[in-house]
Amino acid sequence: MRTFCSETHARHFPRGELSGGELVRPFECPERWEYVRDALIARELDDIHAPGAIDSRALGRIHTSDYLRFLDEAWDAWVAEGFAGDALPTVFPTGVQNRHEPRHIEGRLGHFALAAETAITSGTRAAAYSSAACALSAQQHVSSGNRVAFALCRPPGHHAEAERFGGYCFLNNAALAADGLREAGAARVAILDMDFHHGNGTQSIFYDRKDVYFASLHGDPEDAFPHFWGYARETGRGAGQGYNANYPMPPGTDYVAWSAALGDALERIEASGAEALVVSLGVDTFERDPISFFRLTSDDFTLCGQRIGKAGLPTVFVMEGGYAVEEIGINTTNVLAGFLDA
Amino acid sequence: MRTFCSETHARHFPRGELSGGELVRPFECPERWEYVRDALIARELDDIHAPGAIDSRALGRIHTSDYLRFLDEAWDAWVAEGFAGDALPTVFPTGVQNRHEPRHIEGRLGHFALAAETAITSGTRAAAYSSAACALSAQQHVSSGNRVAFALCRPPGHHAEAERFGGYCFLNNAALAADGLREAGAARVAILDMDFHHGNGTQSIFYDRKDVYFASLHGDPEDAFPHFWGYARETGRGAGQGYNANYPMPPGTDYVAWSAALGDALERIEASGAEALVVSLGVDTFERDPISFFRLTSDDFTLCGQRIGKAGLPTVFVMEGGYAVEEIGINTTNVLAGFLDA
Repeated sequence: MRTFCSETHARHFPRGELSGGELVRPFECPERWEYVRDALIARELDDIHAPGAIDSRALGRIHTSDYLRFLDEAWDAWVAEGFAGDALPTVFPTGVQNRHEPRHIEGRLGHFALAAETAITSGTRAAAYSSAACALSAQQHVSSGNRVAFALCRPPGHHAEAERFGGYCFLNNAALAADGLREAGAARVAILDMDFHHGNGTQSIFYDRKDVYFASLHGDPEDAFPHFWGYARETGRGAGQGYNANYPMPPGTDYVAWSAALGDALERIEASGAEALVVSLGVDTFERDPISFFRLTSDDFTLCGQRIGKAGLPTVFVMEGGYAVEEIGINTTNVLAGFLDA
Repeated sequence: MRTFCSETHARHFPRGELSGGELVRPFECPERWEYVRDALIARELDDIHAPGAIDSRALGRIHTSDYLRFLDEAWDAWVAEGFAGDALPTVFPTGVQNRHEPRHIEGRLGHFALAAETAITSGTRAAAYSSAACALSAQQHVSSGNRVAFALCRPPGHHAEAERFGGYCFLNNAALAADGLREAGAARVAILDMDFHHGNGTQSIFYDRKDVYFASLHGDPEDAFPHFWGYARETGRGAGQGYNANYPMPPGTDYVAWSAALGDALERIEASGAEALVVSLGVDTFERDPISFFRLTSDDFTLCGQRIGKAGLPTVFVMEGGYAVEEIGINTTNVLAGFLDA
């Protein structure tokens, strides 16, 4: 499996994540990346490459220039205020129309965030850019005529909107890959988001577009992060109406129910006329994930990979979540190996 | 000075406040209340009374029933999830129109919050209700024909919107007092918010109304919490257009500049035809306040109180912020004594 990854991911590792009213060791930790890479090697799926340089035009098609400037400046602005911790937003412009970016970093953080658990550190920008570069390199590999590639992205991306970070995400890697496939010639592209959490960022980026079909299987937002997005009633808008499909599922969902939704999503993706596929590959649907509530087993991930492979589309896998760290390698590579076996 | 206060305030004291990327001992701490009460006694301003029972109809005119139900249920719902810390929101429906209250307490917290620094604890609801009761009792004292009363409210209230908490505030005590004055017969009421931080909650509650004039003197939101509200361009809406006045001022503002804004605000309040006044009495404009950037001295607060007293309106003072704890008593009582001397 052609894989793109970068050691630069390790530069992002906040001291704390706000969870349950405490600052805890982040669930989204560097070991996640190491376990996946080690599993790729152990299973001889390790056609591993460093990503190419990032294309700023590609970034600028997905994220706003104000937001990219904020990511450039946030850490230094935070340090200049003398704050002792990592940069966490506190106040949010909820309910504000025509919101305005304040001058102070405390206001800028809230302006450009959707959640308060995700910190920016000294190395966050570098890690986020290296992660995005992996997604774009994997996309280019597939756009060059190859069947599949895997971007071992860290930090993940699917919660990142065009100008908001949160949910461990800063740049939307899957959106960059999908947009890249379009730019390279695919008339229509689909994104299958199989992470436990709704891919609100990806949804929002393509919500008005019909050239990128978005389908997400996830924990019901009534009960699961991100809570305010991912309901079945969100079906797209304007030209994108009907090109967004959400499959919220309740606590305890096992592979039988989950794979029925997967089958429906794959049918819709086929019907959309997609010529290429991006998979937001989260494995936090795993039965022992510490912050999720589905019941997929490790073997189920192999079946899932086979189902995706049988769709027959050129496919870019983009790593998203998965917080049962010791099992993240086997679960992720089960999806990839299943795909190759299809 | 007829003062209403309640020991129940002490039941609200979160273990941590999210500040500078860390959970620190809350700046809004119980000692604040104690220093003010002790200064009242030391200066023989201590006509201290317990508040009456709270009027649920009064609460329901300012806060939504959904929000009041949330405050009733939040702590128990949080505990039921097994979280170890106090209840802090993490994800916010920023950018969402027609937002929906999710089922899970994590989503409900974000739905009903505007900031992530303010925790709900086991005693928060009781303390917030006792604080609101003080404001309403002080209002009733003034509505009964007395010149002035002081509500030693804790927690403070002016950041609390009709259905959002944050910035240390849960129920909007000043809004309750202003609405109570109206209900008791004052045709027009004014609120002077002299806290260092913009009173975004109070502003939002009366933004469409012309019977309650709102004027706020505060740190420029470009630089100061709450960052997304308090700009001079916010002047009211609909019937309330022209009945909202914000005076954002830069870092280092001293009493000369601050009192010029105060004078302008008092002129506008007089011109509004207000028959009674509510003062959101924050003393975090003090030169040594740890989280603010104005330069008022303790003596300036006496001058300020005299200015307000000379306005000649029946006045309800409602305690808001002030985080230079050892000086909060002298600064607060200087305002009250200045008022009485006018």
